[in-house]
Amino acid sequence: MGEYAAPLRDMQFVLHELLNVEAELKQMPKHADIDAETINQVIEEAGKFCADVVFPLNRSGDEEGCHWNDGVVTTPAGFKEAYQQYVEAGWPALACDPDFGGQGLPMFVNNALYEMLNSANQAWTMYPGLSHGAYEALHAHGTDEQKRIYLHKLVSGEWTGTMCLTEPHCGTDLGMLRTKAEPQADGTYAISGTKIFISSGEHDLADNIVHLVLARLPDAPAGTKGISLFAVPKFNVTPEGGIGTRNGIQCGSIEHKMGIHGNSTCVMNLDGAIGTLVGEPNKGLNAMFVMMNAARLGVGMQGLGLTEVAYQNSLAYAKDRLQMRSLTGPKAPDKPADPIIVHPDVRRMLLTQKAYVEAGRAFSYWIALQIDRELSHEDEDVRKDAADLVALLTPIIKAFLTDNAFEATNLGLQVFGGHGFIREWGMEQYVRDARINMIYEGTNTIQSLDLLGRKVLGDMGAKMKKFGKIVQEFVEQEGVKSEMQEFINPLADIGEKLQKLTMEIGMKAMANPDEVGAAAVPYLRVAGHVVFAYFWARMARIALDKQASGDPFYKAKLATARFYFAKLLPETAYQIRAARAGVKPLLELEAELF
Amino acid sequence: MGEYAAPLRDMQFVLHELLNVEAELKQMPKHADIDAETINQVIEEAGKFCADVVFPLNRSGDEEGCHWNDGVVTTPAGFKEAYQQYVEAGWPALACDPDFGGQGLPMFVNNALYEMLNSANQAWTMYPGLSHGAYEALHAHGTDEQKRIYLHKLVSGEWTGTMCLTEPHCGTDLGMLRTKAEPQADGTYAISGTKIFISSGEHDLADNIVHLVLARLPDAPAGTKGISLFAVPKFNVTPEGGIGTRNGIQCGSIEHKMGIHGNSTCVMNLDGAIGTLVGEPNKGLNAMFVMMNAARLGVGMQGLGLTEVAYQNSLAYAKDRLQMRSLTGPKAPDKPADPIIVHPDVRRMLLTQKAYVEAGRAFSYWIALQIDRELSHEDEDVRKDAADLVALLTPIIKAFLTDNAFEATNLGLQVFGGHGFIREWGMEQYVRDARINMIYEGTNTIQSLDLLGRKVLGDMGAKMKKFGKIVQEFVEQEGVKSEMQEFINPLADIGEKLQKLTMEIGMKAMANPDEVGAAAVPYLRVAGHVVFAYFWARMARIALDKQASGDPFYKAKLATARFYFAKLLPETAYQIRAARAGVKPLLELEAELF
Repeated sequence: MGEYAAPLRDMQFVLHELLNVEAELKQMPKHADIDAETINQVIEEAGKFCADVVFPLNRSGDEEGCHWNDGVVTTPAGFKEAYQQYVEAGWPALACDPDFGGQGLPMFVNNALYEMLNSANQAWTMYPGLSHGAYEALHAHGTDEQKRIYLHKLVSGEWTGTMCLTEPHCGTDLGMLRTKAEPQADGTYAISGTKIFISSGEHDLADNIVHLVLARLPDAPAGTKGISLFAVPKFNVTPEGGIGTRNGIQCGSIEHKMGIHGNSTCVMNLDGAIGTLVGEPNKGLNAMFVMMNAARLGVGMQGLGLTEVAYQNSLAYAKDRLQMRSLTGPKAPDKPADPIIVHPDVRRMLLTQKAYVEAGRAFSYWIALQIDRELSHEDEDVRKDAADLVALLTPIIKAFLTDNAFEATNLGLQVFGGHGFIREWGMEQYVRDARINMIYEGTNTIQSLDLLGRKVLGDMGAKMKKFGKIVQEFVEQEGVKSEMQEFINPLADIGEKLQKLTMEIGMKAMANPDEVGAAAVPYLRVAGHVVFAYFWARMARIALDKQASGDPFYKAKLATARFYFAKLLPETAYQIRAARAGVKPLLELEAELF
Repeated sequence: MGEYAAPLRDMQFVLHELLNVEAELKQMPKHADIDAETINQVIEEAGKFCADVVFPLNRSGDEEGCHWNDGVVTTPAGFKEAYQQYVEAGWPALACDPDFGGQGLPMFVNNALYEMLNSANQAWTMYPGLSHGAYEALHAHGTDEQKRIYLHKLVSGEWTGTMCLTEPHCGTDLGMLRTKAEPQADGTYAISGTKIFISSGEHDLADNIVHLVLARLPDAPAGTKGISLFAVPKFNVTPEGGIGTRNGIQCGSIEHKMGIHGNSTCVMNLDGAIGTLVGEPNKGLNAMFVMMNAARLGVGMQGLGLTEVAYQNSLAYAKDRLQMRSLTGPKAPDKPADPIIVHPDVRRMLLTQKAYVEAGRAFSYWIALQIDRELSHEDEDVRKDAADLVALLTPIIKAFLTDNAFEATNLGLQVFGGHGFIREWGMEQYVRDARINMIYEGTNTIQSLDLLGRKVLGDMGAKMKKFGKIVQEFVEQEGVKSEMQEFINPLADIGEKLQKLTMEIGMKAMANPDEVGAAAVPYLRVAGHVVFAYFWARMARIALDKQASGDPFYKAKLATARFYFAKLLPETAYQIRAARAGVKPLLELEAELF
């Protein structure tokens, strides 16, 4: 059951009409030759692959799950073959460095690929997804030798990668981690400890797995300043780069989970596993953050992908399912009842999904474009500004898109009524899969603390001002035009409110640091809405310009923008009050009196 | 994994300190002899049964699920034995009519029992829960013969009951149902058709199952005015009231669902099944509404029960799990990190659950007391007023408590971080189980339409005024006291806003009935908060009065009240805006342009 088709028109709208990526790429020497047509062709092909090869394995993968037998993990039927096709088609290499066999396409193309992969099958996508993160970390921090050994294999997809952070007693609090790395005479390290929740930690898709493992050197300082990063392959690599002896890292068991059943979530036992140091000793978290930031954006794309597929399916159902008459009289008098899409609250559920997915797409593709600017723009100032914007907005991509996705997939389920609760219809899987995205790669609370504490208050609002300036310029440019006032007025208003709220919290936090913890979650929701309001206003501008074309695509875009401002943005009225209420109502009660 | 203990202190607080039920019962002749001690003893015993017998089967029942084999359904291991103990202890009879073997206790005692049963095991509880609804429908609308045959068996729990409404093509829209009832020469009816989503439709717990089936007589008018209700036993009943021949109603299959795995959700095929008419021909929905209203309150209790158990478990975890230091300095310096309950956002997640469960308990026990008043009060005016309050507030119990429960169970899961997503820890089951409560017995959208369209606007606000008067009297009585202003001011404010909103929507609905559909869902959220604000203010009043006792229970109550007003009630600022935004943003876009 279920359906998925890549939303090509909307993706192209974002890339070309909103972001004008072809012109942007002209300012990036290494991408200057890439034109819109190439991008569209790649995305179209990727869409076919996702719909035809990956999507059909989504429900079956959920039903079957992964199998563990004495350390060997078998993925659900079809996963391995689909992965082989993925590798053969060269998809892992899409945005990778040509020096290591990559195709050198911009990040935003990869982003579009991942949106579609996640719509098609989040659990499957996590196998190549983690590999890409490992590629980025090794590309940024690996030694030449590590790059030589690992990067070609990760780029080709012959090998996959993982990130091994969490231990039973520490998830968020990595400073407590205990895994030990003993230096060996040959310059390698013997690593021992237990890691849990390792996504794609063991499986049958690839010949080898490169684990990026956080561990402590013998003389390491306590806390997060004594953590080093190691590359630990499942099979030791021969001098020729081939598969050598089995390394001392084993999958002790796999977890039984609420969702993403098709992905193996592994307990990994390291018993003197041989690894090599990545980056500098005791600075492992720095190196790992490259992977974690990539992963956080990746999780945002998981949220986006699930929102899109839940929307597509609930829309189809709402047009098909006949139930009750419209309160204003029959809309399908020839049928025994009206399709439920005529009912206002079904509309609310559909439009909420639609508004979230389209703004999320605009925002996340724009962020991917900023990453391309950061990596490749010819102007150093542009690179610096882009890096700041990416740093500022990564926690919003991760938390706002995944919170929205959980709401959206739940609305998608609700549109189906009782059938939404039945596994066969496929909607409840989206909810179960979406649930993990609010937790892993740093819970959404951690994201909100990262946003407010580190990214906003941490530099006295400097990064925030950069984004504020972008919004402000748009407001000033469009605010004088009467047809834009319905969008610009609330955008300007919420922008000012966010600024004011930021200053208030900043002041309060000086007296009591817990004020940051108390305000962070609602603050992130408000900031997310500022971003979405900005992108909806920009998309409305384009839709207004092209209205005369008569293309109903623009009419739909405009109506969705109006829905967003009328029905979703007002959530900020709640969140601002919740943020402003401060820490006192949270900490008044002693813990032992709960 | 997991834990549950009946929250006896809080239940007794609601029954005795808030509702003063002993004094209330004095005005109900048939309950006048029941004292507080008896009530407490019953609840304490029930709590033990729930914690010791029913709760241990919750996880295992979820893991195992039900089995179907050629029409025979086997429930998970232990379910049958637990049900036998339940029957032997007389729990099914608790609030039933002594004329049929019942114990004649008030409804609110049954309500307390059901809160605890649902905390312990929602899927299991649905077997006796549906039976109780069937008992109520037959008690109200059955013939003497039907009462004679069925009620003793339902009261004793030897037999169970179901409600058979939904068909593949109609759930919400019962007017479309097709199941046929052909009159037979002996006054019975031969019923044929297919019913789906029949909870507890077939199982191995009891000797017989009484299905209450909606069907059409041959000459029935189209739509909802041509639906009749029939009692259709699994086994025909012998003249002596024993088990006779197998009737023509069979379980064709059971559904595989997101949650409530331990409850059998059945496709029931009727092929000339023999039934008897309940109530009048073509007025089956009237009779069924007795059962549906009972079921809607029952679903609210499912939400309440899940909220309580999720809260208990996440609280225990938050006190135990060590992770990070408080931003204001170590709180457990002797430990490697602080327990996570020190972090403000963990507090938010715990207090949200706590505030929802305690207000939900106050509200739902109060409603149960109104049902007792409706059924048993000596004064007819009191009976009438109580009936109006129950009718008005039933959709709020159903929708508000279950929406809140879904949020609360999700927050409970989130407190566990990654462990919340792992089945072994038990938290994700609460989320999956909670999800159905927003759908069945009328989706929460249907509840909101019932509230706004039928219960509020349908009588020009007459019922609403009755509840408004209760709130208003409390506001006037307490508003003059300075210590109560932090609670009374926002309560009075939100009460006025709801009144204003009601009038606005009423005006708009006269011009366009779709305005009701557009506003209903946010309207119900606002109305629910008015109810919760009222009960939190009342509980705060009691806590203030007893503060001097030094009992920390009252300190906790007061702190939770303050949290509610500071952090949860402000949701209304959003919902009022969403309601007010009206229907235009929902219907602007033609269905075919989605």
